[in-house]
Amino acid sequence: MAVSQPVKRGRPSTAKLSEQNIAEAALDIIDERGWSALTMNALATRLNVRAPSLYHHIEGQHDLINLVRALIVSEIETESLASLDWEEATRVFGMSYYRAFLAHPNAIQILSVTPIDDRATFQMYEAFLSALDRAGWAAERALEVLVGLEYLALGSAYEANASEMMLNAQRAEDNGAPVLAKFLRARSDSDSLVEEVFVHLLDDFIRMFKSERDRAASS
Amino acid sequence: MAVSQPVKRGRPSTAKLSEQNIAEAALDIIDERGWSALTMNALATRLNVRAPSLYHHIEGQHDLINLVRALIVSEIETESLASLDWEEATRVFGMSYYRAFLAHPNAIQILSVTPIDDRATFQMYEAFLSALDRAGWAAERALEVLVGLEYLALGSAYEANASEMMLNAQRAEDNGAPVLAKFLRARSDSDSLVEEVFVHLLDDFIRMFKSERDRAASS
Repeated sequence: MAVSQPVKRGRPSTAKLSEQNIAEAALDIIDERGWSALTMNALATRLNVRAPSLYHHIEGQHDLINLVRALIVSEIETESLASLDWEEATRVFGMSYYRAFLAHPNAIQILSVTPIDDRATFQMYEAFLSALDRAGWAAERALEVLVGLEYLALGSAYEANASEMMLNAQRAEDNGAPVLAKFLRARSDSDSLVEEVFVHLLDDFIRMFKSERDRAASS
Repeated sequence: MAVSQPVKRGRPSTAKLSEQNIAEAALDIIDERGWSALTMNALATRLNVRAPSLYHHIEGQHDLINLVRALIVSEIETESLASLDWEEATRVFGMSYYRAFLAHPNAIQILSVTPIDDRATFQMYEAFLSALDRAGWAAERALEVLVGLEYLALGSAYEANASEMMLNAQRAEDNGAPVLAKFLRARSDSDSLVEEVFVHLLDDFIRMFKSERDRAASS
């Protein structure tokens, strides 16, 4: 039986490289093998180009981190925030922030220690903080809401990616921790437990700041 | 001038290896060069023994992670918790948990995805949760207090170790984020800003759960 030959695709020319496909390839490598696997050579191999071509588009590691951050951040909901009150904006932003990093846990560590320097991320923060600003939040507290929300979301995204439950009731029992074992056994053991805890903490967080504002308004 | 020869110290015999000094050497390597640098060969070199000797004491990577975790956890305050009410216990535990990981940020990632399997860590959780248990906390909420506290502490410990501030007002301005820039400029720029934010969030967190309990008690 005659089979037509598959068309051989040549290497894409350097002109085909864009910040977008460099960012996508970099994030694929991080997702699959972790941040430490993301070398310029690995990236060039993945993009099927020679490493020096990459330097026409990115100056170095810091540039690359910013591209990856912008790509992840593009998954975070920002457009709808302008039409929401601060409580709803916090919920929508917090949930989509969690989901974006849930999909890319290997990127969290390097992004958490690299100063922010890309427009997409600044715009993401601006959209959320504008919702707090419109509601009259003071600077210190607005930034604390933001930071606290990020830590809860990133911690949850991390834990959701652990291969098994971090705490096991039987192991707690075996290691002389009966109260912990009792608490672990009492909770429902659904698959989405981490997400459930995050949703509760997000609710708590919003309620906490709401009651603070209510007190301030009534005094 | 005659100088006495320094006494040449030979390799310590395998008998000198203990879980304690293996854990300390492993944590030193993680602190200095990150988790990915912690190979059995690197550990053996640091301890001045041959790699196979290590296997008399540890079975593999999981064992090693547990030893490192137990060493870090030994810095967390637990003894005093038994004599404190839950609010004070949460404050003391939260602060010392933050400080312990502040000193070892490179260990956070691997510990966050490795199920807990060492007695010291179970005992640490038991000490804290017993304070909540004595105060009549329900299982679900007690675990959520614990988890939320851990995320806030670990996120803060991480950020405190970033080489420079994650968000810069001028860069925010340059990237079309005037609200963020305004908020950043309004806050005091002390060196201990991250710790200050953590202390506030810890206070908020305790207040939030306290008001929940007060409401439940009065209804």
